[in-house]
Amino acid sequence: MAMEIDQIDLKILKMVQENARISLNQISEKLKIPKSTIAYRLKKMEQSGLIRGYHAQIDFSKLDIDYVVISLIKAKYGPNYHDDLGSKLAKLPQVWGVYYLLGEWDFVVMAKFRNREKFMAEFLEKVMSIPEVERSNTQIVAKVIKEDPYEVKF
Amino acid sequence: MAMEIDQIDLKILKMVQENARISLNQISEKLKIPKSTIAYRLKKMEQSGLIRGYHAQIDFSKLDIDYVVISLIKAKYGPNYHDDLGSKLAKLPQVWGVYYLLGEWDFVVMAKFRNREKFMAEFLEKVMSIPEVERSNTQIVAKVIKEDPYEVKF
Amino acid sequence: MAMEIDQIDLKILKMVQENARISLNQISEKLKIPKSTIAYRLKKMEQSGLIRGYHAQIDFSKLDIDYVVISLIKAKYGPNYHDDLGSKLAKLPQVWGVYYLLGEWDFVVMAKFRNREKFMAEFLEKVMSIPEVERSNTQIVAKVIKEDPYEVKF
Amino acid sequence: MAMEIDQIDLKILKMVQENARISLNQISEKLKIPKSTIAYRLKKMEQSGLIRGYHAQIDFSKLDIDYVVISLIKAKYGPNYHDDLGSKLAKLPQVWGVYYLLGEWDFVVMAKFRNREKFMAEFLEKVMSIPEVERSNTQIVAKVIKEDPYEVKF
Amino acid sequence: MAMEIDQIDLKILKMVQENARISLNQISEKLKIPKSTIAYRLKKMEQSGLIRGYHAQIDFSKLDIDYVVISLIKAKYGPNYHDDLGSKLAKLPQVWGVYYLLGEWDFVVMAKFRNREKFMAEFLEKVMSIPEVERSNTQIVAKVIKEDPYEVKF
Amino acid sequence: MAMEIDQIDLKILKMVQENARISLNQISEKLKIPKSTIAYRLKKMEQSGLIRGYHAQIDFSKLDIDYVVISLIKAKYGPNYHDDLGSKLAKLPQVWGVYYLLGEWDFVVMAKFRNREKFMAEFLEKVMSIPEVERSNTQIVAKVIKEDPYEVKF
Amino acid sequence: MAMEIDQIDLKILKMVQENARISLNQISEKLKIPKSTIAYRLKKMEQSGLIRGYHAQIDFSKLDIDYVVISLIKAKYGPNYHDDLGSKLAKLPQVWGVYYLLGEWDFVVMAKFRNREKFMAEFLEKVMSIPEVERSNTQIVAKVIKEDPYEVKF
Amino acid sequence: MAMEIDQIDLKILKMVQENARISLNQISEKLKIPKSTIAYRLKKMEQSGLIRGYHAQIDFSKLDIDYVVISLIKAKYGPNYHDDLGSKLAKLPQVWGVYYLLGEWDFVVMAKFRNREKFMAEFLEKVMSIPEVERSNTQIVAKVIKEDPYEVKF
Repeated sequence: MAMEIDQIDLKILKMVQENARISLNQISEKLKIPKSTIAYRLKKMEQSGLIRGYHAQIDFSKLDIDYVVISLIKAKYGPNYHDDLGSKLAKLPQVWGVYYLLGEWDFVVMAKFRNREKFMAEFLEKVMSIPEVERSNTQIVAKVIKEDPYEVKF
Repeated sequence: MAMEIDQIDLKILKMVQENARISLNQISEKLKIPKSTIAYRLKKMEQSGLIRGYHAQIDFSKLDIDYVVISLIKAKYGPNYHDDLGSKLAKLPQVWGVYYLLGEWDFVVMAKFRNREKFMAEFLEKVMSIPEVERSNTQIVAKVIKEDPYEVKF
Repeated sequence: MAMEIDQIDLKILKMVQENARISLNQISEKLKIPKSTIAYRLKKMEQSGLIRGYHAQIDFSKLDIDYVVISLIKAKYGPNYHDDLGSKLAKLPQVWGVYYLLGEWDFVVMAKFRNREKFMAEFLEKVMSIPEVERSNTQIVAKVIKEDPYEVKF
Repeated sequence: MAMEIDQIDLKILKMVQENARISLNQISEKLKIPKSTIAYRLKKMEQSGLIRGYHAQIDFSKLDIDYVVISLIKAKYGPNYHDDLGSKLAKLPQVWGVYYLLGEWDFVVMAKFRNREKFMAEFLEKVMSIPEVERSNTQIVAKVIKEDPYEVKF
Repeated sequence: MAMEIDQIDLKILKMVQENARISLNQISEKLKIPKSTIAYRLKKMEQSGLIRGYHAQIDFSKLDIDYVVISLIKAKYGPNYHDDLGSKLAKLPQVWGVYYLLGEWDFVVMAKFRNREKFMAEFLEKVMSIPEVERSNTQIVAKVIKEDPYEVKF
Repeated sequence: MAMEIDQIDLKILKMVQENARISLNQISEKLKIPKSTIAYRLKKMEQSGLIRGYHAQIDFSKLDIDYVVISLIKAKYGPNYHDDLGSKLAKLPQVWGVYYLLGEWDFVVMAKFRNREKFMAEFLEKVMSIPEVERSNTQIVAKVIKEDPYEVKF
Repeated sequence: MAMEIDQIDLKILKMVQENARISLNQISEKLKIPKSTIAYRLKKMEQSGLIRGYHAQIDFSKLDIDYVVISLIKAKYGPNYHDDLGSKLAKLPQVWGVYYLLGEWDFVVMAKFRNREKFMAEFLEKVMSIPEVERSNTQIVAKVIKEDPYEVKF
Repeated sequence: MAMEIDQIDLKILKMVQENARISLNQISEKLKIPKSTIAYRLKKMEQSGLIRGYHAQIDFSKLDIDYVVISLIKAKYGPNYHDDLGSKLAKLPQVWGVYYLLGEWDFVVMAKFRNREKFMAEFLEKVMSIPEVERSNTQIVAKVIKEDPYEVKF
């Protein structure tokens, strides 16, 4: 369910989405709205969970973390198996995305590792030991053409 | 290839990764390093492309953008078809992730839309008209369990 | 096995198939047959099970019931598993069609829900807890192009 | 988008959904509402398209129409191919359901025929000659366990 | 459509199905029916096509013809493509069975060859040059556990 | 391993393969070889198992046995499971062919039934209760284009 | 077809299979056969093609060539397409194995590269430009557990 | 991790890769380096494991070992199952290659046998009795177009 937000909130949101290090002064000047109002509205959007944080976007390949995988997971069937498995997958190291699907595969897991050895020790062996997992299928990403989650428009 | 960065760079990087709105003062205090050094090092990391930007992380479901899809794309075969198709997919509206794979499917595309009608008009119909596309297969995400690309450790 | 029905029965049947609210008078006039005969023959077709009822055809999307799914179910193998599973699936809420197949999937289930949350709580979680189910694969219908089960000709 | 309907409309709707041959008198008595109001409201629901018709539900197997198929259709890719193909499939004889999907297959087609010969001549050969069709895959239904589209609750 | 045959025809048929070299005398004695009647009835069943011939059942592996294959064929789509392809497949050397299916594959072809080289030269290369063929998938039979088409009961 | 047979044996074999009701006189005349030699050689080929029998080839569709299926069976894994399962499948009623494969499916089973009900009661329910079966997938044959096992050349 | 070789040839063959740098003296001593005979027999086996060469077995991962792939290739259908494609694949750099199959995929290609970039430039882009290729599917080997082609016993 | 080797090592390595029976004299002459240096460097490369041996490359089809298979193995999931299974597969007779993958199948196994009977007794029955195996899928190689693992360049 969407919270109530107005056009001014949306304008502020777009500014911090585009550049999280923008200062209150800069926003205030652009929107002709007092700094205290900006601060208050940002706080409100943070408290409601609409803004979940502010983060530097890092090019991990420049840190030699370029073993990028997309792993498909099939769960065994049983009461609460899927909820339990979803939580366990989300807690694995270097896993940044877990999506629950309804089709041939139950979960898509996105993760990044320094190399194959790290991937196998930190991820694959752990996945294979989770009892709710029936099967995994991991695709190595040959090239990350785009990864800009902040670019979604609203 | 990784650029040369030292332990202090990494510490600064982790701080802005965790909270992009942290002030130079705060970093300076924590690391006992002058503000000007912090500023200089951040600038260097930005210029090298290691830091690609600073962004608010938004819970799009709170903005009623909760038609989340993972679309698999198969390309036709021909010289440069894959490069061309990758670029075209990355330019489609609301597409925030495009991954090039080597297996059964050629591309995984991540995108978010306000509803099914938007998805069909803005994405699916366009995909179907790209001549390099042989076939697409779109999975509707039932639940985003985790989506924190900023959480990858280094 | 087909019951014995004649050309007049078929004519009456077609009329009520096309418009279930047609009156005995109207049928009587069109066919030049006494009302009592029409009534008797309709009763006979109802009793034999040839006519299973008369129903308004509703456009459920106008009632905001537009999360339409086609779910494929694979059963575990064992004595009577398929019969038992077929019955259980037919009793799930909002399920209006259950078809038993012989190929890769054992059952095709047709159902309609108000939204994804209802679908997951009322259908998916229940399916996952049925012990005879080995696996399900649910497709979200993007568009109901035609759904007129009453239009089959005879 | 849902039209505006109130609790009384819904009650009337449920009655004609359950039994389309119910008389205005019967509805009037049960709901303690004048017949003219019932008639007016039914008319309004018919005109808005919420009620699409009233039909006898026929057990087609009793008319020896028991070659029931579920056919999956894959379309070729091109501008408007899917819209064109959807319309063509909906017009084929004995086809009562056409659903547009987003995954491995593009259309699910439901149809009923008197026997295999009719199916092949009236359906399969025609499907194979539609230029937008890339491939079809037809499953013969071994048993219709449930087919009660009027049973969807609201 | 079945021809009209009586219990005596069926008894004779079973005898020649079991042993095609049985003499008219032997049948006559067992059934207590004159030889001429037997001869007449056999002739009638041959003329109607119910009896298509009498053949020795050979164990081809004893003739070193033990490269047994089951080949799945997918046809391209177009008017009459399937009929044309079915005929062409039936005429290939050493092909003794061609079955037309409605699912993922269009034809199942049964054939036997002296060895892999013969299979590739006499069958595979020819299949690959038939323009209506989209794809073939050949399975080598590891063991013929049973092959007694004459054993079907009636 | 092939038994030792000469050109004359092969000539006789071809004659009885083509027409199992040919008399010894006819063979003798054509080959200019005494009847007793023919009889002796036939006996030898029967005893060695090269000739497994002589049978009328029946057009079962003319006996209303036209529910023709090709069933794919996947076995569970365990010691001797495949041998046991192969034997069990070969003993099911109306099953005339059982082939053991090495790929995605373990067995291809060919069978013919009077109708769907017979198929489900006599075959499918039995297959589902065999403990070594992991999964079956049955294709209904739309048309038997060719079924002439005696036509294999040698 | 096998050439004629005797037990002494086989003994010599096994020795050079196990250690290709064994001297004629060593073989001569072990087998109590004159050096000239050994030399003569080796020459004969080389000329017949039975011995195709003598090679050091290298651990390529120690040379940083550890991007090991198994690539599946599907060919388009047409006269000689498969032969042509097989030859083209065998000539690609770093490809050491090409196997022609009869099932879902036409070719299995084994190759080793220094890294992903080399793989994509030297192999994948070339494969995608071969007109006879319909589709490729490349699996990255996570671990070479065994690769000892010389260990096949005879 | 690569050991330290220089250009001279690489030149020597290429010579023994191409012809393992080349004498120290021949290498010495070509490279203008003393024999003792060659011997010392070869020894060092052998001890480090870079050179794993020297072997005659045999054309096994000339020894009638031409039942060549590529077998795909799926493992059950559990702690250490994959490591255990990999070792067991590598020890099976006539298996010369075992590759661990991350996708649909877990292992690719390369092996060669004298004939189908040997394959079934020595390999398939053993694979089916390994408890960690969930499923195997064996492809018979129709033609080995290239198999020169020694040809990989460095």
